[in-house]
Amino acid sequence: MTPPSLPPDCGKRILALADQLAAFTETPGELTCTYLSPAHRRVAAEIMALMKDAGLTTEIDAVGNVVGRYKSPAAGGKILIVGSHYDTVRNAGKYDGRLGILTGLLAAEALVRQRHPLPYDLELIAFSEEEGVRFSSPYIGSLTVAGCFDPATLERQDANGSSVADAIRGAGFDPGAIPRIARAKEQLLGYLEVHIEQGPVLLNEGLPAGIVSSIAGNVRFAVTVEGEAGHAGTVPMGARHDALAAAAEIVLFVERRCTQPGLVGTVGRLDVPNSAINVIPRRCEFTLDVRSGDDAVRDAAVADIAAEMERIAKRRGVSIKTKELLRAPAVPCSPRLQDTLAAACTRAEITPRYLPSGAGHDAVMFDGLTEVAMLFVRCGNGGVSHSPRETITADDAGIAARVLLDVLLNLKP
Amino acid sequence: MTPPSLPPDCGKRILALADQLAAFTETPGELTCTYLSPAHRRVAAEIMALMKDAGLTTEIDAVGNVVGRYKSPAAGGKILIVGSHYDTVRNAGKYDGRLGILTGLLAAEALVRQRHPLPYDLELIAFSEEEGVRFSSPYIGSLTVAGCFDPATLERQDANGSSVADAIRGAGFDPGAIPRIARAKEQLLGYLEVHIEQGPVLLNEGLPAGIVSSIAGNVRFAVTVEGEAGHAGTVPMGARHDALAAAAEIVLFVERRCTQPGLVGTVGRLDVPNSAINVIPRRCEFTLDVRSGDDAVRDAAVADIAAEMERIAKRRGVSIKTKELLRAPAVPCSPRLQDTLAAACTRAEITPRYLPSGAGHDAVMFDGLTEVAMLFVRCGNGGVSHSPRETITADDAGIAARVLLDVLLNLKP
Repeated sequence: MTPPSLPPDCGKRILALADQLAAFTETPGELTCTYLSPAHRRVAAEIMALMKDAGLTTEIDAVGNVVGRYKSPAAGGKILIVGSHYDTVRNAGKYDGRLGILTGLLAAEALVRQRHPLPYDLELIAFSEEEGVRFSSPYIGSLTVAGCFDPATLERQDANGSSVADAIRGAGFDPGAIPRIARAKEQLLGYLEVHIEQGPVLLNEGLPAGIVSSIAGNVRFAVTVEGEAGHAGTVPMGARHDALAAAAEIVLFVERRCTQPGLVGTVGRLDVPNSAINVIPRRCEFTLDVRSGDDAVRDAAVADIAAEMERIAKRRGVSIKTKELLRAPAVPCSPRLQDTLAAACTRAEITPRYLPSGAGHDAVMFDGLTEVAMLFVRCGNGGVSHSPRETITADDAGIAARVLLDVLLNLKP
Repeated sequence: MTPPSLPPDCGKRILALADQLAAFTETPGELTCTYLSPAHRRVAAEIMALMKDAGLTTEIDAVGNVVGRYKSPAAGGKILIVGSHYDTVRNAGKYDGRLGILTGLLAAEALVRQRHPLPYDLELIAFSEEEGVRFSSPYIGSLTVAGCFDPATLERQDANGSSVADAIRGAGFDPGAIPRIARAKEQLLGYLEVHIEQGPVLLNEGLPAGIVSSIAGNVRFAVTVEGEAGHAGTVPMGARHDALAAAAEIVLFVERRCTQPGLVGTVGRLDVPNSAINVIPRRCEFTLDVRSGDDAVRDAAVADIAAEMERIAKRRGVSIKTKELLRAPAVPCSPRLQDTLAAACTRAEITPRYLPSGAGHDAVMFDGLTEVAMLFVRCGNGGVSHSPRETITADDAGIAARVLLDVLLNLKP
C-alpha cells in the first residue's frame, strides 16, 4: 500500500488558509487576535470547521482550545499531540502559531482521507492562548491541556477590568470544567509542534526546515548603575563617574560574550532617568536577557557578565546592582523524536540542521509530562516575526507539512 | 599709604552672607530662586541693601540687575564691571553666581571704607538671570547690560503662561526701559567675574583659585541610530543590527576621544523608544555635547566622532543621523587681565594655574564688547555644583576676595 501523501499544491493551500484565518481581526488594517475577542471566536469556529471538513472529530474545550481527533483503530493507544496556537500578538504576522495548526491539519487530513490507520491516537490542538497579550498571562491553552493551569489566573484582568473567568463565561464556556481538560501523563506518547523559526538561521543557510534541539531557557535581570552627576562642561573626563558610559561598556561586553553558537544576550531597555543634555548621567537602568538551549552555557555567560560588571564598577567608581527577574531552565527536545524528524528531513532531501529555539513555545508546557519536539520552518525577510512583514514560502509550508506527515507515519508508539 | 585690605575673617563673612541670601527660596527645604519670583525679588532687595551698607551708589535696572557703583574721582573714566548672577537653578548650591557678587561686595566695601580712589569707575553688577530656568532663556541680566538682549525674548513664556514682559511688569519694571540699560563699548574698561569652578581641577591640585584661560565653546548634536528590531531569543548575535549596541560604541568612543586636557565630551541623554526586555533595540536616540576652550581642538574631536560613527554604521548595518543643535565658539580671556590676575595670585602665594571654563558664564556676553577675565574658586565635594552639595571653604572665599581686591587696585585703565 502506498503511504498517504500530500498533493503538490499543499503549501499554497496552507498559505491560503492562513490568509483566510487572518481575515478575522480586532483591528482593521492589521492582524490582531487576542484571547476570546470576537475575532478570536470566529477564528476558532473557522478552525473547527476546517478540522471537521478534514474528517476529524472536533470539540472546543472550556478555555477555547480547538481539538481535532483521529483515533487509532487499536484500542487503549497513547495520544500524540500535534499543537500550536491561534491567538496572535498585536499587528501580527499570519504564520506565528497558525502554521503549526495548518500543517497539522493537512497532514491529518491526508491520513483520514487515505484511511491510513495510526498506532496511536492523534490529537491536533489549536491552542487558544500563547502570546499573553490580553491578560499578560501567556500559554493559557497549553497550560490547561498540560494540567498546569493555575486557577489564580482566572482572576487576572485585562485593560478593561474583565477577568479571565469573565471572558471564558462570556464566550459560553464553564471555568469549572478547566481541570477536566488536563491530559494524564500516562496517556501521552509525545508532543510535536511545527512553528516558524522567527529568526534568520535557516534563511541564511538555505534550509527550508530545521530540528529544534532544545528550547532556550532564559535569565532576565534589571541592572542599575549609579555613578555621579556632574556638569558636562566642567568635570574633566578622568574625574567622571558616568553611569551611562559604564552601562555602554556592559552592553558591548554582553554582545561580545554572547557571540557563540546557541547563546544570545540582549539589552532591550535602557534609560537614563532625569537626564539632560549638559549633565553627566548619574544613573542608568537597563534590562538584560540571556538565553541558551544549554543552561550551563547560559549560566557561564551570566557569570562572566557579572564578573565584568564588577570590574567595570571598580574601575569606574560606580555601583552596579542587579536584580534577577526571571530564571527559566532550557527544555531539551526528545532525542527519539528528533531522530524521527531527522529521518523525515533526510527523506525530504533536507540536511538535518539542529538549532535551539530562542523563543518560548507551547511545547515548553509539556516538558516533564511527555517527550516534546519541534520542527522550525524558514522565515523570509531576514527572519522577522511578530510583524506584518513575517513571511514564509508556499514551498516551505508544503515541505513542513510533508515532514510532519512522514513523522506521523513513522513514529513508533 | 597702606593699600586697602580685607580683614582676616572676610571669608567667613562671605559664607555667612551666602547663607543669608539662600534663606530666600521658592521651594521650602531647598534653594530655588528663579527669575523674578518673590524669593528672587527679596534676594535683589537684600543685595541692594548690602551694597548700600558697603557705601556704593545703587540701583535696580529694568530687568532686575542690582548695580552698585563706586565712581572714580577722575571724571570721564572708563567702567570696569565686576559681575555675577543671583538667580539659581532648582535645588541649587549657595555659591554658584553669588560668590562673585559677594567677593565683589567685600572688595568694593574695602575700597570705599578705606577711601581708596580708583582710576576707573567700578560697577558691581548682580545679574538677575543667568541660569535660564524659568523661561528657558539664559543670560537675561548680562545680555541686557551688554546690549544684546533680543526683544523677542519678552514674549517667551514660563510653564504657567506668563511672559518675560509680564514678569518684568509684575515686578514693577518697565520693559520699555531695557534698551537704555546697555553699556556702550567705548565706556568699558573690562569685565571681571569670580565664580566657583564647578569642577574638581583646583581641588585635585590643591589650589584655592585659578585663572580662566578661555570659556569653552560647545557643539551639541541630537543623534539617532536606526537598526533593526528582532526577537531577543531568536536572532543570533551575528545577524543583529542593534541600535543600542551601536550607540554604546559611540558613547565609549566619545569618552575615549575626548580624554585630553581642555576637551570634554558628554552623552547626557539616551533613550530607546518603544523598548521591551525581549526585543532587540531598533532605534536609539541620544545627545552629544563636546566642549573645549579651543575651537580647533573641539572641531577635530567632533570630526573624529563623526568619522567613527560612519565606520560603526557601516560595520553594524545601521543608519546614524546627526542634527546639530548648537555651535558656540570659545571665548578667550584677555591676556592683560589674566596677567593682572596672575600677579595678584602670586602676591597671594598661589601658583597661577590657568584652566578653561567648561561651563558658560555671564562673561561670555561681554565677548567682543570689552576684555573679559574670570577667577575660579575651588569647590569641595569633588567639585559638585548645581546641587545642595556644592561647597567652598571660608579660607578660599577670603582668598578670592583678596585676589579680586588686588586686581582692582593694580588694574591700569
